[in-house]
Amino acid sequence: MSSVPLSPAANVSFAHQKRSISAISAPSPTGGKEERTPTAVVYCEANFGALDGKTANGLVRHSEKYKILSVIDSQKAGRDSGMVLGEIPNAIPICRDLADALAQAEVVPDYFIFGVAPASGMLSPHERSVVLEAIRLGMNIVNGLHEFLNEDAEFAAASAASNVRIFDVRKPRPKKDLRVFSGRIAEVTCPRIAVLGTDGAIGKRTTATILTKALNDNGIRAVMVGTGQTGLIQGARHGCALDAIPPQFCSGEMERAIVEAFEAENPEVIIVEGQGALSHPAYLTSAFILRGSQADGVVLQHAPKRTHLGDFPEMLMPTAASEINLIQTFADTKVIGLTINHENMSDVEVTAAIVRYERELGIPATDALTRSPERLVDMVLAAFPEIKEKPTVAAA
Amino acid sequence: MSSVPLSPAANVSFAHQKRSISAISAPSPTGGKEERTPTAVVYCEANFGALDGKTANGLVRHSEKYKILSVIDSQKAGRDSGMVLGEIPNAIPICRDLADALAQAEVVPDYFIFGVAPASGMLSPHERSVVLEAIRLGMNIVNGLHEFLNEDAEFAAASAASNVRIFDVRKPRPKKDLRVFSGRIAEVTCPRIAVLGTDGAIGKRTTATILTKALNDNGIRAVMVGTGQTGLIQGARHGCALDAIPPQFCSGEMERAIVEAFEAENPEVIIVEGQGALSHPAYLTSAFILRGSQADGVVLQHAPKRTHLGDFPEMLMPTAASEINLIQTFADTKVIGLTINHENMSDVEVTAAIVRYERELGIPATDALTRSPERLVDMVLAAFPEIKEKPTVAAA
Repeated sequence: MSSVPLSPAANVSFAHQKRSISAISAPSPTGGKEERTPTAVVYCEANFGALDGKTANGLVRHSEKYKILSVIDSQKAGRDSGMVLGEIPNAIPICRDLADALAQAEVVPDYFIFGVAPASGMLSPHERSVVLEAIRLGMNIVNGLHEFLNEDAEFAAASAASNVRIFDVRKPRPKKDLRVFSGRIAEVTCPRIAVLGTDGAIGKRTTATILTKALNDNGIRAVMVGTGQTGLIQGARHGCALDAIPPQFCSGEMERAIVEAFEAENPEVIIVEGQGALSHPAYLTSAFILRGSQADGVVLQHAPKRTHLGDFPEMLMPTAASEINLIQTFADTKVIGLTINHENMSDVEVTAAIVRYERELGIPATDALTRSPERLVDMVLAAFPEIKEKPTVAAA
Repeated sequence: MSSVPLSPAANVSFAHQKRSISAISAPSPTGGKEERTPTAVVYCEANFGALDGKTANGLVRHSEKYKILSVIDSQKAGRDSGMVLGEIPNAIPICRDLADALAQAEVVPDYFIFGVAPASGMLSPHERSVVLEAIRLGMNIVNGLHEFLNEDAEFAAASAASNVRIFDVRKPRPKKDLRVFSGRIAEVTCPRIAVLGTDGAIGKRTTATILTKALNDNGIRAVMVGTGQTGLIQGARHGCALDAIPPQFCSGEMERAIVEAFEAENPEVIIVEGQGALSHPAYLTSAFILRGSQADGVVLQHAPKRTHLGDFPEMLMPTAASEINLIQTFADTKVIGLTINHENMSDVEVTAAIVRYERELGIPATDALTRSPERLVDMVLAAFPEIKEKPTVAAA
């Protein structure tokens, strides 16, 4: 169980996209070998579809490492998880509790993924008991919290007794192995494009994933570098959970992840997942993303109908124009396009917003989920014409 | 030994200042009680006076918690530490090694302070042996590195055997006690002024310390909130070592430190020590300082003759004007003045630079070390006239 095979998309259901997604980035290192994709249930009690459920929301949309069997959230039990997200049905049911999930799966899944991402990053007493029960049943644990379960005596003993493993996704490497920024990023000769946003939980990772796939589908070798726990659980081969790394080393670890992705995958472009917002009062790791990656371009994800910050209902959202000014003042980079999160918008409103933002901001705009992915490719090629479009490489 | 008394300045030698420094911030909670200030030797082999020796450099200038007996640096042994810094003699000698320091002190000092701050934040094998020898000799250890010595089995065993304590200054509180930004900063009704800079190791902490003292000397209750290991070792009563706190919690811990300082000291103004530079490729915690403190004003420390970043000799320094633009775009704040680090400058050049920057930038400029502290007070009162100047309160 220690080495989870990297398989081509085992469980993908981007809503509104015509084609099936077969390979998000470069071909899998396992080549043609068929290995069984491990199965997983995602725990997201009381939060599926909400901002704090973003790890679970992301996993039912896209998961390369695990085949997601079900989501646990008693408040939405019996419904289809795709439909709860306002997308097309994905045949991943929402279950009442762990017993219900096991009954529906008819097997004990290989993994229990803790898919709630509360701001505190800590387990409640009830959540502890659920995770311990999953361990007792023989499931490995994937934990994206700031609280590292391997460092907790009770969890360590329980996992040893049940012979399962706990993966603390956010845990940084040992301090002696962390790097400070060195300038080695200058050796990366392909463009780096960061997908930033005007708030947290606004769709940066989803847009980055779709953009990476669209580029590869068009024969442009693109690799995505993850910067948060969800992207790493979904299967990003390169990256680090920046918000858990001591700030002294954040730029350096970002730089290292980019250099490693460049050396391992030989991409023509690197897409970097953003975090929070550069204007956010609390979630500022995009500052390290911009400096560590020395991003050449930025795609900005914005929700026109979101009026206040998700985690700070008393604070107004920034405008797209003010965020662009901040990003371009903060870093020697250029915002090359705007991507729209269509929450609370009709399709007509999305179209109007695209027209309005293109005119106002003078850059291309689109909605990654409801408009053609070709628009994302065009956005990148307009800004970086040196990336030559090549004949489509058939994947799988 | 566990509770180090907070005493009024035991060991202070700001060069060029006419008056002795008696109280940097509000009166000590120990009131009039006389307690012996613990003694300390500061280890800074090969780095005293240099950028990576900034903890030692700071401690011989100003230390509220410890009486500094000597500095260890074989390359500068026999010299006066004040003179090595280009300042007036301070009677703190530089010793060849630990044996030399003990011989000169004629007692075993209470504390061994590890005063080198390398970018890697880790001990070399030789440094390990020196720290272990200090423990064997019965000295408590003050450690400002990212490497926590209490978590190292060899150091833990050695300190237990010698019945001494190790203080890992940078170690954050347990994760369950870390806070995310909450907006409670709105309850702090006095202005917060952050002292930021255009590079690391450029004099932000020194200027913040002098500014805080100058305000108090003028009857304005000012308290300084520390954000780095050196300020905390020097004796700042409020603060946190931001560069070791997971970024998720940096804004929140900054906010908490400010709120605690406000509630405990009832100040009329809070001075916040900056870190690195907002334009720096690696050291970006000033981003969290601005957002967590919601700073109302910023004093910018700049070294006109420094051409390249201290840690990145291939990277040009920002101009003061570009840093001011970045700061004011990044935060809803105003840069209220420029303070000059006079490295490699004659006094005539400092005067010329002050005139030039005041004209160019339209804000007051001064050099905190060589010009009257009244200029710093005037700078603050010009920007925040609601802080009334009051008759000087005699300290001590």
